Amino acid sequence: MFKNMETPRLILDRGRLEKNSRLFMDRAKELGVKLRPHLKTPKSVEVGKIAKDGDMTGITVSTLKEAEYFADNGFSDILLAAAITPNKFARVKRIFEASGQQIILATDSLWVANQAVSYAEKNGCDLAFVIEVDCGEHRSGLPFDSAELIEIAKVLSAGNRTHFKGIMTHGGHSYLASDRSAVAKVAEAERYAATSAAKRLSKVGIDCKIVSVGSSPTCLWAEHLDGVSEVRAGVYLFWDLMQVGLKVCAMDDIAMSVLATVIGHNRAAKTIVIDAGALAMSKDIGANRNLPDAQYGYVCDATTLERIGTLSINAVYQEHGIIQVEDDIMYDRLPVGSMVRILPNHCCLTASPYGNYTVIEGDKVIGEWGRFGGW
Amino acid sequence: MFKNMETPRLILDRGRLEKNSRLFMDRAKELGVKLRPHLKTPKSVEVGKIAKDGDMTGITVSTLKEAEYFADNGFSDILLAAAITPNKFARVKRIFEASGQQIILATDSLWVANQAVSYAEKNGCDLAFVIEVDCGEHRSGLPFDSAELIEIAKVLSAGNRTHFKGIMTHGGHSYLASDRSAVAKVAEAERYAATSAAKRLSKVGIDCKIVSVGSSPTCLWAEHLDGVSEVRAGVYLFWDLMQVGLKVCAMDDIAMSVLATVIGHNRAAKTIVIDAGALAMSKDIGANRNLPDAQYGYVCDATTLERIGTLSINAVYQEHGIIQVEDDIMYDRLPVGSMVRILPNHCCLTASPYGNYTVIEGDKVIGEWGRFGGW
Repeated sequence: MFKNMETPRLILDRGRLEKNSRLFMDRAKELGVKLRPHLKTPKSVEVGKIAKDGDMTGITVSTLKEAEYFADNGFSDILLAAAITPNKFARVKRIFEASGQQIILATDSLWVANQAVSYAEKNGCDLAFVIEVDCGEHRSGLPFDSAELIEIAKVLSAGNRTHFKGIMTHGGHSYLASDRSAVAKVAEAERYAATSAAKRLSKVGIDCKIVSVGSSPTCLWAEHLDGVSEVRAGVYLFWDLMQVGLKVCAMDDIAMSVLATVIGHNRAAKTIVIDAGALAMSKDIGANRNLPDAQYGYVCDATTLERIGTLSINAVYQEHGIIQVEDDIMYDRLPVGSMVRILPNHCCLTASPYGNYTVIEGDKVIGEWGRFGGW
Repeated sequence: MFKNMETPRLILDRGRLEKNSRLFMDRAKELGVKLRPHLKTPKSVEVGKIAKDGDMTGITVSTLKEAEYFADNGFSDILLAAAITPNKFARVKRIFEASGQQIILATDSLWVANQAVSYAEKNGCDLAFVIEVDCGEHRSGLPFDSAELIEIAKVLSAGNRTHFKGIMTHGGHSYLASDRSAVAKVAEAERYAATSAAKRLSKVGIDCKIVSVGSSPTCLWAEHLDGVSEVRAGVYLFWDLMQVGLKVCAMDDIAMSVLATVIGHNRAAKTIVIDAGALAMSKDIGANRNLPDAQYGYVCDATTLERIGTLSINAVYQEHGIIQVEDDIMYDRLPVGSMVRILPNHCCLTASPYGNYTVIEGDKVIGEWGRFGGW
């Protein structure tokens, strides 16, 4: 179905994307919370629309470029889940002026909150915030029991200020959990940190409209989310080998792959060379912790997406991927000019350099969807 | 000088780029060969023009998108140094029709050579080739003494065919060499493989116009390049921590860095969080073999580019970089909202997602130069 197409090329299986989206819509309903899909990886209007079956309200992004793009394309209620700093306020204001969308920003800094208040007053605009709390990942966020949490919320909601919207946390350490019960514990840590922070604020008269938690594994395996208003999750839209390694999904749930061409046989080195290297796949090897043979990605049949023997990309150069070959029969199976598809370690990084998706449905190419990179 | 600029942002120091370019122009002159700079990483007309001081003839690229871009922008004598396959011939033809530039292609496959001859005859176009030989890196290329080398050259030059142009090899294992003499050995392996292949072809009456070798380390430390016509090198334009680790350049030769903002302090975790993560820096950690503290990049003063204490980016998430902090004084040195510049592990991967360079000269920002990604 990919005959004569140029490679490397990012392939998106629409049927799998829809199935993954449906799973999480159902799961959020079951948990009794709103689903706020994270679109940092898709960076595509079409994928964003499928994520909630046409509902374009309530999404997560990680950069202002993503926020701007989705706001310009009709999405609303957009949460930027990476902490903001004042050098980015002007763009937040521009996005509001162009699209009418007030991006919900995140911070864990009293200084940023004060700067935001000053900026909003000086520029006659509003800025909306959630405060980030750390539920154990130790990436960013305040401890839920910190004094600063209350101070920041007070600064953002003093007098007639309407800057404060709620609490956000991310249990990214669910990616390090070894099994379902360990993931459930991280889910409870997310819930406990976020709701405890919200309760503390409630006691001083500050109401949290948003109590936001999530990662794909914790959303899937949380026991309950009492007190939480919404879940954020993203990797579930595409899945990848890292999530297969975590047993959160199966190989045939992975909706994203890279189409590549065999560009050489190096029989002396017992390798096959393809045109998907470090840029086409990324250098992320995170899946190898649980799937040691993931290497830089599983080498699969271009049509069926079934793995070819035990082949992986074993080494990458900028535009070359190297597949080690144990059995010479693979040179017949994969002649120069033939195509393969690669299942990625980590879809978020693999997608990054591509300007579009080649979208397939079953065994047919049905179109190209644009995507973007950069900031 | 970067006040209120949005981050992450790719910074290019024009003075350093010019100095690095001059070094390699002088070095190629000293070796008595033509310099064919590899522009796979810069992906920029402006950088390409500086690389040979305004001479836009004779460059290397690694994708057809790069070939197309440079051809459309007035560059000529363009060598695509990653092996071609027939699914890409149509674009080669389109580039020729649009720009008049016949891209020089690479192969090590008899099948591809035969396909090229058929395609050229059928479509009334010419296709130019170098044959790639393997000088010991074992990435791609034929052994210089293989029978297939002669067969391919014969197919490409039989009768009145003008497809055959010469020989190419790349001693990328120079990046694994431990010192200057080890690099010089790789340089000699490149020279020996390329010139031996050319001599074999000469004996059967086939002349090599191009005998092309190179990598930045081997170009710098080759003892001589007798019999070689040109060197290809690229990373020298920008340098990076990997090359510092190889002692091929010094820290203050590095022309590319990433401007980032401190977006959070996580005092409980003893970290500083910046907005340059896995996408802004890449997940390449190749420099760590020789510089174990390189981690995901050295954290430097935004203005002077001097390293701040012993700080590195120790962990990356998609849009978050985590700096471990031994001494609380760093929270005063790097308050939330302040900026740093990061020296990258591997400039080729770090540059990839950025749509432009913010160009500086001394301590002034002098402009923005466009660049691109994808294929």
